[in-house]
Amino acid sequence: MNDLSAAGAAALDAADPLAGFRDRFVVADPDTVYLDGNSLGRLPRETLARLQDVVAREWGGGLVGSWERWLDLPGRAGDLVGSLVGAAPGQVVIADSTTVNFYKLAAAALDARPGRRAIVTDPGNFPTDRYVLEGLCAARGLELRWTTPDRLDSALDTGVALVTFSLVDYRSAEILDLAAITAAAHDAGALVLWDLSHAAGAVPVALDASGADLAVGCTYKYLNAGPGAPAFLYVRRELQAQLRQPIWGWFGQREQFAMGPAYDPQPDIRRFLVGTSPVLGIHAVEVGAALLAEAGIDALRAKSIAQTEYLIALHDAWLAPLGFTLGSPRDPARRGSHVSLRHPDAARIALALRAHANVVPDFRAPDVIRCGIAPIYTRYADVWEGMDRLRRLVESGVHTRVDPASRRVT
Amino acid sequence: MNDLSAAGAAALDAADPLAGFRDRFVVADPDTVYLDGNSLGRLPRETLARLQDVVAREWGGGLVGSWERWLDLPGRAGDLVGSLVGAAPGQVVIADSTTVNFYKLAAAALDARPGRRAIVTDPGNFPTDRYVLEGLCAARGLELRWTTPDRLDSALDTGVALVTFSLVDYRSAEILDLAAITAAAHDAGALVLWDLSHAAGAVPVALDASGADLAVGCTYKYLNAGPGAPAFLYVRRELQAQLRQPIWGWFGQREQFAMGPAYDPQPDIRRFLVGTSPVLGIHAVEVGAALLAEAGIDALRAKSIAQTEYLIALHDAWLAPLGFTLGSPRDPARRGSHVSLRHPDAARIALALRAHANVVPDFRAPDVIRCGIAPIYTRYADVWEGMDRLRRLVESGVHTRVDPASRRVT
Repeated sequence: MNDLSAAGAAALDAADPLAGFRDRFVVADPDTVYLDGNSLGRLPRETLARLQDVVAREWGGGLVGSWERWLDLPGRAGDLVGSLVGAAPGQVVIADSTTVNFYKLAAAALDARPGRRAIVTDPGNFPTDRYVLEGLCAARGLELRWTTPDRLDSALDTGVALVTFSLVDYRSAEILDLAAITAAAHDAGALVLWDLSHAAGAVPVALDASGADLAVGCTYKYLNAGPGAPAFLYVRRELQAQLRQPIWGWFGQREQFAMGPAYDPQPDIRRFLVGTSPVLGIHAVEVGAALLAEAGIDALRAKSIAQTEYLIALHDAWLAPLGFTLGSPRDPARRGSHVSLRHPDAARIALALRAHANVVPDFRAPDVIRCGIAPIYTRYADVWEGMDRLRRLVESGVHTRVDPASRRVT
Repeated sequence: MNDLSAAGAAALDAADPLAGFRDRFVVADPDTVYLDGNSLGRLPRETLARLQDVVAREWGGGLVGSWERWLDLPGRAGDLVGSLVGAAPGQVVIADSTTVNFYKLAAAALDARPGRRAIVTDPGNFPTDRYVLEGLCAARGLELRWTTPDRLDSALDTGVALVTFSLVDYRSAEILDLAAITAAAHDAGALVLWDLSHAAGAVPVALDASGADLAVGCTYKYLNAGPGAPAFLYVRRELQAQLRQPIWGWFGQREQFAMGPAYDPQPDIRRFLVGTSPVLGIHAVEVGAALLAEAGIDALRAKSIAQTEYLIALHDAWLAPLGFTLGSPRDPARRGSHVSLRHPDAARIALALRAHANVVPDFRAPDVIRCGIAPIYTRYADVWEGMDRLRRLVESGVHTRVDPASRRVT
């Protein structure tokens, strides 16, 4: 990584065994440097074709008869996503939003630990997770016990029903120790629910091997399934028959079309389904996950590490002298697939980057610019170009004339 | 309706002011008689184009920047659906599945009536509604008080928190008296939640005028938004600030992207949103609802009544002698947009109709064949052809050789 020239980036791309996958995605504006695949992943070309086919042929042509092929979609696409997060078949389904799934599984865990009155999570956890837990605690009179993962032991006791963290932090990209935290929670008799939204498809996750109980995650980031695509949920096989989620819907019913008088949930992962499955969205999940599976999660992880290392080298050489500091771990083993760059003027810099330099990162208050690496389509040249435009922008001072309210240069 | 010949049907189609709308839908196989738009509506041609545009241009091209135009989608499409069910703007959003919305609003209603320990519904209500209520009652130790709507008065007392029915029965198509039931529930101090799944887009619904509190409904039936498309929910404006749904997610948060420490819900209908909005699905809802709005709900209702009357005339002339009985009200004012035909051998007849006569109705156990009229695309010729094939099939006895297990003629 000593060669920080544009030619050096080109050489890295030329040697990249995954480089060909970029052509499997729509790149509408080649001048845009897109570093926000951790917010919304790019559109796979095959998704356009698949959705066209599902809409025109299966819905338009097959009409209601197509439900015969759609009924097993949540599990079929779920198994594919499961293969990316270390879950054997039969433990993952695609359904609802991440937030709804998080609610379902958190509530199921609480119900499975009656008498225990506390939930442990990180005050820096992703907002929607915190809000769901706040709501559950308000409804049930439970204690929401805030702790950072490094101080977990002091928060654990026999009153804890549920421990829940994001495996990859949405701001810093720090990766938690899945197995160690799971074991600590289990030692205290608690269940563990992992939010894999910033991990799935970018970081290998050993759900089965770690002993994790429950997980959810979104599919519109690294899984490239499109805006608001349905989410996934994981329930360890041994727990499926014991756990019940709180929203008793007809897609979780054992004999769904018998429409019987009482709720009798499926014996397996399907009991975590609720309403009618979002057919179009699940197909997009299937295409996105299949692309990643084809590339291989280990190869993707290797490239992601190489690219975040490269981005950090550029940061150290070019950006640190301009007042930036690194907001992500330097140890690649502890870092997910985005790099957070902190700067006191980050809000205006992020706005100016989009408006004046055609670089799309993400901003997170108060001072974080997130640069997402989606190794299946991000090039080293993108990283180089993005950081080069960033340093030139800050050197020019254009960002100091951005009005955050109007988002314009004044 | 005295002319029951094929020519008579053709004459009715020729005089139909809405006939032109059929061309706005994909009709892949002209020989198929599709009478199941009440299960899954047909594909509007514009939906193909809209989805292609949203996927390719907005997602593929605009990437994360397109969220600026997507954030107001749930309300924008919601207002359009609201216009079809008698709701002024600002009271309907598109989100989640019907079942999840039903759960959210039922729970919100129960929380708003603390101390009241009973929910009233119909034992014949749609299964997913019954299961959700069963789950809520199990979780909260409430009584689920079963009653048919005609006996509502005897079920109401000051212990009832929530009354909930489907406005149009999914089997018989009977339309309940929205205003009268709402008033009776209000007199007892209860809130009312209406499931409009079999009404929205086919029957005018006077939500605002009736004083109804809450409603949900699906969009993949008469609204033609596609398999598993996101559902809608209605909360009367005066109730919005008081009610809280139980799944506290970031799309319901007032300053969503401030990602603050505590849940502080939007003051309006947006507080009933939960997770990231399903962008593709909501666009399909918007297209489907716009088509119906263009045709006009009153014109659609007039045609629906004429077509169900016509179907019943054919039933009386052709099918009653073959052992069929009418499973829907004869009074068109009390009948929604499908007609249920009952027959002791309905299961095998329905299978044979699909397999051997290319007629697609719906079967509901134990003995109901549902024939759905979607007035925006159903022709009188479809009704005539469907009933003609049905009588010929039953006369031939082919259905008696169908094995329901294998779905084949043995």
